[in-house]
Amino acid sequence: MRMYDIIRKKRDGMELKREEIYFVVQKYTAGEIPDYQMSAFLMAVYFQGMNERETYDLTMAMLESGERLDLSSLKGVKLDKHSSGGVGDKISFVVLPIVASFGVKVAKMSGRGLGHTGGTIDKLESIPGMKTSLKKEEFLRIVDEVGFSIVSQTENLAPADKKIYALRDATATVENLSLIASSIVSKKLAAGADAILFDVKVGRGAFMKNLQQAEALARLMIDIIKRSGRKAKAVISNMDQPLGRMVGNSLEVIEAIECLKGNGPTDVMKLSYVIVKEMLDLAGIKVTEDDIERMVCSGKPLMLFKKFIEYQGGDPKVVDEPDRLPVSERIIDLKAERAGYIVQLDAEAIGRACVMLGGGRTKKEDDIDHSVGIELVKKVSDWVNAGDVIARLYYSNKSDLMTALELVKSAYEFSERSSEIPPVVLEVIE
Amino acid sequence: MRMYDIIRKKRDGMELKREEIYFVVQKYTAGEIPDYQMSAFLMAVYFQGMNERETYDLTMAMLESGERLDLSSLKGVKLDKHSSGGVGDKISFVVLPIVASFGVKVAKMSGRGLGHTGGTIDKLESIPGMKTSLKKEEFLRIVDEVGFSIVSQTENLAPADKKIYALRDATATVENLSLIASSIVSKKLAAGADAILFDVKVGRGAFMKNLQQAEALARLMIDIIKRSGRKAKAVISNMDQPLGRMVGNSLEVIEAIECLKGNGPTDVMKLSYVIVKEMLDLAGIKVTEDDIERMVCSGKPLMLFKKFIEYQGGDPKVVDEPDRLPVSERIIDLKAERAGYIVQLDAEAIGRACVMLGGGRTKKEDDIDHSVGIELVKKVSDWVNAGDVIARLYYSNKSDLMTALELVKSAYEFSERSSEIPPVVLEVIE
Repeated sequence: MRMYDIIRKKRDGMELKREEIYFVVQKYTAGEIPDYQMSAFLMAVYFQGMNERETYDLTMAMLESGERLDLSSLKGVKLDKHSSGGVGDKISFVVLPIVASFGVKVAKMSGRGLGHTGGTIDKLESIPGMKTSLKKEEFLRIVDEVGFSIVSQTENLAPADKKIYALRDATATVENLSLIASSIVSKKLAAGADAILFDVKVGRGAFMKNLQQAEALARLMIDIIKRSGRKAKAVISNMDQPLGRMVGNSLEVIEAIECLKGNGPTDVMKLSYVIVKEMLDLAGIKVTEDDIERMVCSGKPLMLFKKFIEYQGGDPKVVDEPDRLPVSERIIDLKAERAGYIVQLDAEAIGRACVMLGGGRTKKEDDIDHSVGIELVKKVSDWVNAGDVIARLYYSNKSDLMTALELVKSAYEFSERSSEIPPVVLEVIE
Repeated sequence: MRMYDIIRKKRDGMELKREEIYFVVQKYTAGEIPDYQMSAFLMAVYFQGMNERETYDLTMAMLESGERLDLSSLKGVKLDKHSSGGVGDKISFVVLPIVASFGVKVAKMSGRGLGHTGGTIDKLESIPGMKTSLKKEEFLRIVDEVGFSIVSQTENLAPADKKIYALRDATATVENLSLIASSIVSKKLAAGADAILFDVKVGRGAFMKNLQQAEALARLMIDIIKRSGRKAKAVISNMDQPLGRMVGNSLEVIEAIECLKGNGPTDVMKLSYVIVKEMLDLAGIKVTEDDIERMVCSGKPLMLFKKFIEYQGGDPKVVDEPDRLPVSERIIDLKAERAGYIVQLDAEAIGRACVMLGGGRTKKEDDIDHSVGIELVKKVSDWVNAGDVIARLYYSNKSDLMTALELVKSAYEFSERSSEIPPVVLEVIE
């Protein structure tokens, strides 16, 4: 088998055999196929695509390139959740304690933020003392005793994906459904859960810009999971405007705690409840949104969140005293220059503004500041008068405040006519 | 400017600006753009193409990456000729002495053979003593005094093309018209002629498999040359079966000498005359095929060919005594297994058979044997009886004779019905 022939075959639109796909992944990971052949191959895949069978084989080849977490020592169905990335997405912090309160275990590995989307691990690390890198035994013990745990992805899960993704990132070959799906699913399968819920974001702040793309990605990921003998569902959710009112690491943890206290913004609560319902369904448990609401009111999820923080070395008092979390005291208010209804609030611009404040990364090596962020005082469908505060920026002396302010300002679009609040949950796919 | 953005732009089907194309070529040649980004870019070009303006800019950027030969010290119009590569193509040896006999100078740089197509330089080197690597001054002096010269391409003509071609060759991105045209034309422009005649081969043994492709390549190359302020024409010629009866290095020189003596095979003579006519036309001289025939009969072209050999250090006696050329004495005849008309004689299979005998290269580093080759005793439209010799293989003790025999055998296709001799010249494009 020669890489040249495989590149040519895919370039000419032909279906690759299982052994050809394994050859590419194994030899590339072993350094036996040079980057320049791999990038030509990836660009050919970008144009010619892969069918579901090829995508499955690609996923499995990447999965088999590294370690796989064995969750079999834990009793019952083990769930996992994946978000395709958005702005203000603190859903995992709300959903996992609720699912665990129903007695279902969630062992979740997460990534850090890059570009305009935030990362769950970065947000968690805003909690003083919080450890996100645990030994396998410790991770499993916390899942077992608390009901859930969130740790950062280890290096040895799907190393082929890591190497291929870095190359895609440098060669404009990221945006292909098969490559995206195999990258996500290989890591999720390596993390060992029995069933996975995908939250596929669609809209201005998401990777998928239209519903059709998002649905196609969701169906492809579910197909791969099912072929591998596990269960999956997907929720397609709106990411035109940010989720909730808080964007930034510590600010989002504070908002998540509010949600667990029953005081969360409507969109975050709605999406969380749908995701909880579908995750429990994957575990064979049928609940209504009323059941979930009653569970939140019982205080059990909040208690589990506190326990989770404590078990992972964090300061559990942040749950009762959120001002223990680092929030910058340097605040600037952005005021409306005119009266009108807010009809758009561009999530990507807000995400980029948060990066400019220091709360995100443009390069992997960048440090982030957990204390900065943006509070969206007004969101889509709100009426504002000229001079009203529409957003509040928490900045530091390292922030590029002017650019951030410009971005936040540009994110808001006003009109004399009111616009409806867009639905946050667009579809559930199984 | 970032390579990533340029890859993405081409990937998305957008037209690249002149400065973007120069950026790619200059930075890649300087080693500042890595191979893996360049190969992704080339694959994007493979799929999205380049328009004529982009192809022109790409050609000029590659041209400007190296030295350019200055032919201005020579009087009159300086011509060049390029063949897109075929099997049995000894046309240059016939054409150049005739054109020079009409008083028009031809300064030609040629390449070596790779794969199933032979190389002019390899063929020349079958002449004992022949030098193909000359200093610039010597090359110009020979063009001036003999009327033509053929030397091997120097390393410093269009080094960008050399580097890019090597990458294309390893990444299945060779077959794109803009990339092919810019590669050929950048080297031809660097060689400094005022006008260029392209012999674009089409058919089984050629790079271009159909007439439409060949025409498109011809038009694109002519367009680039015209944009650069020089003149060009193209002859589209048939390469379904090999040209002439001889394939192999010394064998082709022998056949070319026969042509200059007026005894050449019809197809070689016909194509040579059309190319001579069009080259002279580019130099502003109108001649008929009768004029050309008379010139050959005058013996002047043969005399110039002899002089050319002498000036480049070769043994000029080979012209009168062809058995001074190295021709293997190990000969095997291939006989027809059945009677019938020959309706196909696959040039590519014959070219590959010649490589198997040792007369060509599969890798650049391979040595070649000038004395081996194939004599095609029977060609398309000939009638053969069972047992008639159809081809004669000249081999050495290093030849893979069995494979070569199989290939030659498979190249012949018989039928009970006769088939017409295909026209060798399909079209002239200007």
